[in-house]
Amino acid sequence: MLQSYKKGTLSLHETLVQLKEQGIEDLGFAKIDSDRLERTGIPEVIYSSGKTKEQVRQIVERMHNTGIDILATRASEDIFQSVMEIVPEAVFNPVAKTIVFHHNSKEITKDYIAVVAAGTSDLPVAEEAVETARFLGNRVECIYDVGVAGIHRLFSRMELIRGARVIIVVAGMEGALPSVVGGLVDKPVIAVPTSVGYGANLGGITALLAMLNSCAAGISVVNIDNGFGAACQASLINKLK
Amino acid sequence: MLQSYKKGTLSLHETLVQLKEQGIEDLGFAKIDSDRLERTGIPEVIYSSGKTKEQVRQIVERMHNTGIDILATRASEDIFQSVMEIVPEAVFNPVAKTIVFHHNSKEITKDYIAVVAAGTSDLPVAEEAVETARFLGNRVECIYDVGVAGIHRLFSRMELIRGARVIIVVAGMEGALPSVVGGLVDKPVIAVPTSVGYGANLGGITALLAMLNSCAAGISVVNIDNGFGAACQASLINKLK
Amino acid sequence: MLQSYKKGTLSLHETLVQLKEQGIEDLGFAKIDSDRLERTGIPEVIYSSGKTKEQVRQIVERMHNTGIDILATRASEDIFQSVMEIVPEAVFNPVAKTIVFHHNSKEITKDYIAVVAAGTSDLPVAEEAVETARFLGNRVECIYDVGVAGIHRLFSRMELIRGARVIIVVAGMEGALPSVVGGLVDKPVIAVPTSVGYGANLGGITALLAMLNSCAAGISVVNIDNGFGAACQASLINKLK
Amino acid sequence: MLQSYKKGTLSLHETLVQLKEQGIEDLGFAKIDSDRLERTGIPEVIYSSGKTKEQVRQIVERMHNTGIDILATRASEDIFQSVMEIVPEAVFNPVAKTIVFHHNSKEITKDYIAVVAAGTSDLPVAEEAVETARFLGNRVECIYDVGVAGIHRLFSRMELIRGARVIIVVAGMEGALPSVVGGLVDKPVIAVPTSVGYGANLGGITALLAMLNSCAAGISVVNIDNGFGAACQASLINKLK
Amino acid sequence: MLQSYKKGTLSLHETLVQLKEQGIEDLGFAKIDSDRLERTGIPEVIYSSGKTKEQVRQIVERMHNTGIDILATRASEDIFQSVMEIVPEAVFNPVAKTIVFHHNSKEITKDYIAVVAAGTSDLPVAEEAVETARFLGNRVECIYDVGVAGIHRLFSRMELIRGARVIIVVAGMEGALPSVVGGLVDKPVIAVPTSVGYGANLGGITALLAMLNSCAAGISVVNIDNGFGAACQASLINKLK
Amino acid sequence: MLQSYKKGTLSLHETLVQLKEQGIEDLGFAKIDSDRLERTGIPEVIYSSGKTKEQVRQIVERMHNTGIDILATRASEDIFQSVMEIVPEAVFNPVAKTIVFHHNSKEITKDYIAVVAAGTSDLPVAEEAVETARFLGNRVECIYDVGVAGIHRLFSRMELIRGARVIIVVAGMEGALPSVVGGLVDKPVIAVPTSVGYGANLGGITALLAMLNSCAAGISVVNIDNGFGAACQASLINKLK
Amino acid sequence: MLQSYKKGTLSLHETLVQLKEQGIEDLGFAKIDSDRLERTGIPEVIYSSGKTKEQVRQIVERMHNTGIDILATRASEDIFQSVMEIVPEAVFNPVAKTIVFHHNSKEITKDYIAVVAAGTSDLPVAEEAVETARFLGNRVECIYDVGVAGIHRLFSRMELIRGARVIIVVAGMEGALPSVVGGLVDKPVIAVPTSVGYGANLGGITALLAMLNSCAAGISVVNIDNGFGAACQASLINKLK
Amino acid sequence: MLQSYKKGTLSLHETLVQLKEQGIEDLGFAKIDSDRLERTGIPEVIYSSGKTKEQVRQIVERMHNTGIDILATRASEDIFQSVMEIVPEAVFNPVAKTIVFHHNSKEITKDYIAVVAAGTSDLPVAEEAVETARFLGNRVECIYDVGVAGIHRLFSRMELIRGARVIIVVAGMEGALPSVVGGLVDKPVIAVPTSVGYGANLGGITALLAMLNSCAAGISVVNIDNGFGAACQASLINKLK
Repeated sequence: MLQSYKKGTLSLHETLVQLKEQGIEDLGFAKIDSDRLERTGIPEVIYSSGKTKEQVRQIVERMHNTGIDILATRASEDIFQSVMEIVPEAVFNPVAKTIVFHHNSKEITKDYIAVVAAGTSDLPVAEEAVETARFLGNRVECIYDVGVAGIHRLFSRMELIRGARVIIVVAGMEGALPSVVGGLVDKPVIAVPTSVGYGANLGGITALLAMLNSCAAGISVVNIDNGFGAACQASLINKLK
Repeated sequence: MLQSYKKGTLSLHETLVQLKEQGIEDLGFAKIDSDRLERTGIPEVIYSSGKTKEQVRQIVERMHNTGIDILATRASEDIFQSVMEIVPEAVFNPVAKTIVFHHNSKEITKDYIAVVAAGTSDLPVAEEAVETARFLGNRVECIYDVGVAGIHRLFSRMELIRGARVIIVVAGMEGALPSVVGGLVDKPVIAVPTSVGYGANLGGITALLAMLNSCAAGISVVNIDNGFGAACQASLINKLK
Repeated sequence: MLQSYKKGTLSLHETLVQLKEQGIEDLGFAKIDSDRLERTGIPEVIYSSGKTKEQVRQIVERMHNTGIDILATRASEDIFQSVMEIVPEAVFNPVAKTIVFHHNSKEITKDYIAVVAAGTSDLPVAEEAVETARFLGNRVECIYDVGVAGIHRLFSRMELIRGARVIIVVAGMEGALPSVVGGLVDKPVIAVPTSVGYGANLGGITALLAMLNSCAAGISVVNIDNGFGAACQASLINKLK
Repeated sequence: MLQSYKKGTLSLHETLVQLKEQGIEDLGFAKIDSDRLERTGIPEVIYSSGKTKEQVRQIVERMHNTGIDILATRASEDIFQSVMEIVPEAVFNPVAKTIVFHHNSKEITKDYIAVVAAGTSDLPVAEEAVETARFLGNRVECIYDVGVAGIHRLFSRMELIRGARVIIVVAGMEGALPSVVGGLVDKPVIAVPTSVGYGANLGGITALLAMLNSCAAGISVVNIDNGFGAACQASLINKLK
Repeated sequence: MLQSYKKGTLSLHETLVQLKEQGIEDLGFAKIDSDRLERTGIPEVIYSSGKTKEQVRQIVERMHNTGIDILATRASEDIFQSVMEIVPEAVFNPVAKTIVFHHNSKEITKDYIAVVAAGTSDLPVAEEAVETARFLGNRVECIYDVGVAGIHRLFSRMELIRGARVIIVVAGMEGALPSVVGGLVDKPVIAVPTSVGYGANLGGITALLAMLNSCAAGISVVNIDNGFGAACQASLINKLK
Repeated sequence: MLQSYKKGTLSLHETLVQLKEQGIEDLGFAKIDSDRLERTGIPEVIYSSGKTKEQVRQIVERMHNTGIDILATRASEDIFQSVMEIVPEAVFNPVAKTIVFHHNSKEITKDYIAVVAAGTSDLPVAEEAVETARFLGNRVECIYDVGVAGIHRLFSRMELIRGARVIIVVAGMEGALPSVVGGLVDKPVIAVPTSVGYGANLGGITALLAMLNSCAAGISVVNIDNGFGAACQASLINKLK
Repeated sequence: MLQSYKKGTLSLHETLVQLKEQGIEDLGFAKIDSDRLERTGIPEVIYSSGKTKEQVRQIVERMHNTGIDILATRASEDIFQSVMEIVPEAVFNPVAKTIVFHHNSKEITKDYIAVVAAGTSDLPVAEEAVETARFLGNRVECIYDVGVAGIHRLFSRMELIRGARVIIVVAGMEGALPSVVGGLVDKPVIAVPTSVGYGANLGGITALLAMLNSCAAGISVVNIDNGFGAACQASLINKLK
Repeated sequence: MLQSYKKGTLSLHETLVQLKEQGIEDLGFAKIDSDRLERTGIPEVIYSSGKTKEQVRQIVERMHNTGIDILATRASEDIFQSVMEIVPEAVFNPVAKTIVFHHNSKEITKDYIAVVAAGTSDLPVAEEAVETARFLGNRVECIYDVGVAGIHRLFSRMELIRGARVIIVVAGMEGALPSVVGGLVDKPVIAVPTSVGYGANLGGITALLAMLNSCAAGISVVNIDNGFGAACQASLINKLK
């Protein structure tokens, strides 16, 4: 086919059309991309926000029936009730707002991801990262409530943090924690700004900007409150051979 | 007069007009407010930015002749040359961009203001604060290059910092240093964001927002690059009896 | 230990790990930092926003049992009811949204903090500052409803304002009051922007920006609606010897 | 014609096309709208910024030849030299950056416009307003250097301010002056924010926002540094019968 | 007194303190500024937003008892019910969200203010302007639903618009109407941006910015949705003799 | 009439006034612009957001009685119930939030508009575009759930996309889809950013900015969530002869 | 190949790799995409901004030698001199900052694109659109200096505007012109905001936002100053059969 | 010492002070942190922007004499000339603006970092990443000019991209490339927005926001134009065992 394209007997768009999608099951309002895991290392996950509980239930049902493990993020208690009708063994983390179900027990990495959180208000985001990372098969260690205004609390946990293969740092307000951690470790740090704060925190924009301007090298940043995304990248890193 | 006002025989604006200004000498394009020191604790200071060297020279001449000490901020080398024609003993700090002259030696406070700066690029702002604080009669101690990405550098200087009566903390980029300092001292901290950085630092807005959202209590903030303003407030605090 | 570090037989992070936290009691989801008062001059305070009434109740219980005085800010009527089950003598200020309880009567400073507010809509923030400052042991004087659009109201209160050791000025809308006050006093002024206004006030950003750009020296600024933070710094200043 | 339109024999756009422009002289790259004065009360004025000196010279020449009085704003010294070749009697105000020429002496209003400016750095904008207002035939009184940080300076000039028919208030930095003036007068106040300041003044946005949020009623605002626009509106108001 | 001040036997702040407020009645949480009308031409008005219905009722009661006419803006139906218990003759405009009561019939100006509105969604703001202008004693003419996307609708009303002494133009979305009107009249135009729109209208910021950048001279702008403020300035202009 | 205007016996505004509106029926709070279809190619449409169901019902009634086809956008279920009392045959699309009624069956174009949507959360906006385009008489083809993170899904649909006469591309989050499509087709692309996302998506501003900065030529953009506007322009293009 | 992919013997990325690029000539620092014209209807064009004159010269040389017509945008006089050494017949438009060269005379469309510009300062952007549209083979008609502040100037040109197949409207400042035009025509309107203005025009953001919020349907918008992009889309539309 | 701290005979700050810095050499205006490499995996690097060539020369001299390898970023040709006086073998990359010198040849990793860039204007940032990554001892493969508007160019390079251990994706304008790449690989992607573009690209903010909102999981972002930071994190990841 590509030979034809080169010779000019086949236009580009005709060529592209022949790249038929594989492994995509159509659900009417959403296609389940079952090939995604192999392609990107991250399986299909359900982002519940903005979906009705009926929509989530249908997606869960289809995925469950085809043997796919389930992770739903930003799920309400209501959605969980609806999911349980189909997968009674599903587990809900009310802080993280996640629903998880595995068909088989999963192999867990030996190396671990450290999830570090500044304050108690940052826990929902930190826990979303923890649940996601575990769902993806990673060992996770949590280091919570170690914000920079009481920096001695951080120091007593540094051994655990430095032992990780990759570190997720979650913080709101002034977003300073990743800079301090980044200056003390030789591992990649993924910073997650949270929308915690008020006034000039601008819904997390302040923490986001601060993290992007960190004076410590080796830090990268994900979207505000995006514990899921941080865990995805951390998992890809943790599983590098 | 105020009796007349109460009785209604004198309108408010007639009353106000009779509050004739005192101690204000008119220079045509600017009035020198020689009463300001007594009223606010801060004498008249020359903000050189946006003024021609001729304008600065004229103001300096008039102030000098009436025996007023001189502090000019944001002054270029050029402006300094022009000022030296009138006040040859004036001293220029090329990092701080300040010109200073005292008619008589000044009494210096026993308590000191600590000026803490995160990086070498923050020095112009830190030095403006130092020059201003000294001009106002304060003892000053400088603690430079102690940014949070190498936090052990800060700790070795904490004794000097904690010994101050009031602390000015100058930082650009993510602006995290005031939070860390604020969590380790029991003295008021005045945070000064600098425009140091690039990209998403937005000309210092990022550091400013971060400092306003500090998780440490007891911190207040001044405008970006405003070493002068921080020193003014620090001086008022340092001189409280 | 530090000798070992210098000799290189102990790495930095090993050294840091040995800085075990002191005076930190773990509550599962939050650590109570009972050492904070000594370290920073500001005791542990409960920021209720974003916490459930159950979480606040638990923290209050633990603090109360260990003899710590209680200040909860941003507390709803609901949270207050829940706290009263444990500390029936706790006092609620419905304007300030604060809950206060002292185990013993507190020594009050002789010098006072002046809390100046522009309009009646700024009172919640001003009252949060007042309650916090009093909780920290300060004498406080309130000067309310003295906005710049009727500036004669401010002048009749200037004697009280100028008598303070430190002045908190609370204003929304155009945030002009701190500049006017700052030009009339020789004491440090802490400006608190409020989110009062509409349209182009941008949730308090306008007042914040205006205060940061004040033409009066000696003014510093805290986050929008942050009466608590202003009072913390004012208290540190008021208690300087 | 409009009858035809009503009957449907003439489409809307055919009707509109027949509204041929009157009094518009085409200059190739610009049309001189000589009818504007009659229509809007404001004659054609040359905004020099972004025009070459050759372009300004050509427009001036054409206007001059047809007997139109000339006001050019934002004009450089260079442009002035070029204009003088055609109109040697033209007058340049180097602070205001305006060039003015009248064919005949103009009748001046008895009532006056007060132009109030906060600081010396605001003078270019204030002077642009003054020159424009005078060009439009208004008596103008100037009250300069009366910023809110030394508010007694304002009070001594209030009689002159209150005597005006309309008041233009020019201020940069925190933009507080219009609120104070607006609370003391019963005349319309037009506020002009200037780009004077640095850091969080955001090129005048801060002063603009503050003025829009003024707590004093009876104030309206024009664009940053728009002394010309303020004077246009003030002139329309001053000339109302 | 001022002689003493000049001689230096009376400090500035002592002098200012003696400017005792007149005509200010203290209500605990708010002072009623009964002198305001005389001072600024605008009487005390109740801005209901953010006040409880009990607070509004109390202020109304006090004002009513001292014979002051009542205008409350941003009032809900609920607040109106509460006010009617005290002033049963009060009139509520549910579109404008205003409550009005006059003790005596008011003299109305012969000249009128034109209130022009672009779309039906802009009517709440336009009606607030209308109610306020009438409360202040002005004749008002309304020209509604004449947005620029159907500009022939505007033209058929131009005679009425041009006959006004001052014109208020209310528009949301792209905020273009004031520019078109301003180019067709020789009277002052006060532009009021509204928060009508969605997406990139940014809560009215887009219309606000557009109006500030109008290519028509003689236009000034008030805060988003500020029909009240526009009417205040229009009234001051309309009553100029 | 225009001759009179040219001769000066008729002023501009008198001339304009004579451009009486045609085909505009006044409804008190809204004028129905029945001439609009002929003038702009887009008939009057009801934007329901911010209107009460009573207001929508009245407008529908009047339009229906005069034989005008009905499209209401941003309509709630509630509004639909209210409309059905008058037009029982009206059809509601609960995803698009549109109500449609045609008096007669409409001629449909042979060429089609392709509506391409990135994710399932973008469907409300895509469907608003679809309903509008069909209401305006266009054949429409839908290509949904083809976001760039699984770009092979897009390629399998390129033939259908390239066959369109004009393409509407709807996307939230990073808004990348229009760039990819625009680089593969030789037809005009209209990009519609949606408010889908969280944190730094800023309510759709991120997608909007990304689309405006597309590296592919031939793309233009409409307001956030403005499926209606995109369909209007697409229809004008699709119907060009 | 795709069969292998479906069977799983070929991974997706192996498949994609085999889509070798055609018609792409590598120049070291840039690839010339000679296939682009066929694929997207827009040929390769040189965006000169940020390129050295040497880089532009090299690209021009290579394109010229392979017989490709040349359009360079944002080109300085300097770059033009450098290009003329290679293509002496190239034509420079100093207002548009474009360089154009055709190997053969081009067929021009019978239908035309109207380019409408509000003010003389908008001409550089309008001319870039004109040059681009003509380069792409379109007949173009220009309607300049018809801003909304003198709206009668627009009306006299409406016949020409309405006769176009597609209309580009260029405006800075408040960006109102597209709304007015859009309400008077039944053709697609592409709005181009320009960075013309000062203060709150924010470098063109104000005009951009205004155009995105146009109350006229059938308008879409391109990036600030992007005359090139507008012409590309207009050309695609104009050439639709 | 820590025992004393626990017993309370040593305060926290006394304890911290005893953490004397190691390996920090004081240069007056800057401390060289020679311990940093061991602590964070990233050696001291010279950020030249905002430093004089004399300052850079001094730092280089000191580092060179103590045997430290040199990387200077954001260096001008001028700075390079100055550095060559001391280290004549230093190598300058004029696109990347980097100066590099190694004392000994470095071991290079077997796994490689892929640096993918969208357009030729993004090369300075991409090259900064390449130089930094190589300086840190990594094998690097470059894939340039593969922007999404000609997506077939990307596909032909996917094999090389997928073979990397970690991928840096550099893009300006709409910043869409990381999303497309991220959806096709199972390796961590670090996205670098560049300031390339104009108008609504806002100096790179648009690309930054787009990347943060990527619909592909596994992507994190660094500051605008921060090729250095991306390379630091990529190196930490690439060297994980």
